[in-house]
Amino acid sequence: MHEENNSRRGFIRKASISGLAALSIPAIVTDALAAHKGKTVKLQQNDVILFQGDSITDARRKRDDLTVNGASALGTGYAFMAASDLLCKYAGKSLNIYNKGISGNKVYQLAERWETDALELKPNVLSVLIGVNDFWHTLVRDYKGTIKTYKEDYTTLLDRTKQKFPEVKFIIGEPFAVKGIKSVDESWFPAFNDYQKAAREIADKYDAAFIPYQSIFDKAQKDAPGSYWTYDGVHPTIAGNRLMANAWLETVKG
Amino acid sequence: MHEENNSRRGFIRKASISGLAALSIPAIVTDALAAHKGKTVKLQQNDVILFQGDSITDARRKRDDLTVNGASALGTGYAFMAASDLLCKYAGKSLNIYNKGISGNKVYQLAERWETDALELKPNVLSVLIGVNDFWHTLVRDYKGTIKTYKEDYTTLLDRTKQKFPEVKFIIGEPFAVKGIKSVDESWFPAFNDYQKAAREIADKYDAAFIPYQSIFDKAQKDAPGSYWTYDGVHPTIAGNRLMANAWLETVKG
Repeated sequence: MHEENNSRRGFIRKASISGLAALSIPAIVTDALAAHKGKTVKLQQNDVILFQGDSITDARRKRDDLTVNGASALGTGYAFMAASDLLCKYAGKSLNIYNKGISGNKVYQLAERWETDALELKPNVLSVLIGVNDFWHTLVRDYKGTIKTYKEDYTTLLDRTKQKFPEVKFIIGEPFAVKGIKSVDESWFPAFNDYQKAAREIADKYDAAFIPYQSIFDKAQKDAPGSYWTYDGVHPTIAGNRLMANAWLETVKG
Repeated sequence: MHEENNSRRGFIRKASISGLAALSIPAIVTDALAAHKGKTVKLQQNDVILFQGDSITDARRKRDDLTVNGASALGTGYAFMAASDLLCKYAGKSLNIYNKGISGNKVYQLAERWETDALELKPNVLSVLIGVNDFWHTLVRDYKGTIKTYKEDYTTLLDRTKQKFPEVKFIIGEPFAVKGIKSVDESWFPAFNDYQKAAREIADKYDAAFIPYQSIFDKAQKDAPGSYWTYDGVHPTIAGNRLMANAWLETVKG
């Protein structure tokens, strides 16, 4: 605790010396979203909302808990937090929320389980956050996929979904990484930026709401250091998950 | 799922026939709090915030996880949800948040573990929600405590805290029960109301912020039935926990 506090005080001193303005967190979120067209998704009565992705979405959910809107089934990350807000605020809408993120997944692994973990749930709103492992595992796990693989697999996945459910609305999250924190060093850049650009282009192509998580995490570091928002540069802390949930919630309207 | 949806549709039809107005959830929370003086607690830099209580606070936290601001350590209930908002919104404040609720606890059981689970943490803000078991267990577990026991034990506990930390700020939650849902039947009333009245009086006595959870849950049933907000009349669903967190957050200012 003392170390943490000292490090925080050091940060605040440095931030103040370097003249960084501390923006309020709500302003950071709305600014970042407005910068990307601010497309939103309108929720309808009885909508099925599905969160898909990797460990960031998974967030220790109990995978054998198949209940809709179940606390254990939704994990403890941004998906759970966003779900709790939706279920409370739109209590009259009878929303049905699922989280099917799985730790370690890359796009092709979503594709492998898409029939069971996406299509069978008949989603009206599909939120996808995928891509950090598609790049990261080329550095640490000898994964051979390229940016071309990512783009093609992602496009195929959304085409397949759209073909079955022409009215489905997509929410695409930007893969993000906080430089200088544990797993994320200089070697990630600029290569990782291509995955972010690809996710943004895919969002445009499918008229999806897009959440620019990278710029949100970048700007949040004016209020607290990167280690406050993410444990290892990839996985968010509670504060980081809430930051993501706030941004996610800005993309939906009741 | 279909049963649930049909039951929800039935509810909406009934609510509409009986002329209940569906208030927005944020309005329900602010109205209920304003009705009780609206006393708030101001957060300071480096504050230690401690959530104490029974299973509703506990909410499946990992009790052997002693980390401050830890996701597992905070459970998945209203305390976790409120903590996530505080840590995100007040990122610059270096807050230290703990949850030490334990399932099944009555006030005397808080007292038994108060040295370790409260005083040693040196709380600046102490949030307590206790009382439903002090009554419930007289019905189902042959517990012999009375309303007098509850009042005296609660007062002693807060005196003991105030004596050690004269500047500590209290947030007192009203024990609540949703009538007609599983565990909560007519036999609870009016006896249970005495526990609610006592909690309110104790909040007044210690100049605490008070959260009138009962009226919040009562009013929320104009938007969705009781079973939407609580599983068994006592333990909140995700939506119910978020409703509580929203109310809790109204009692603190940055």
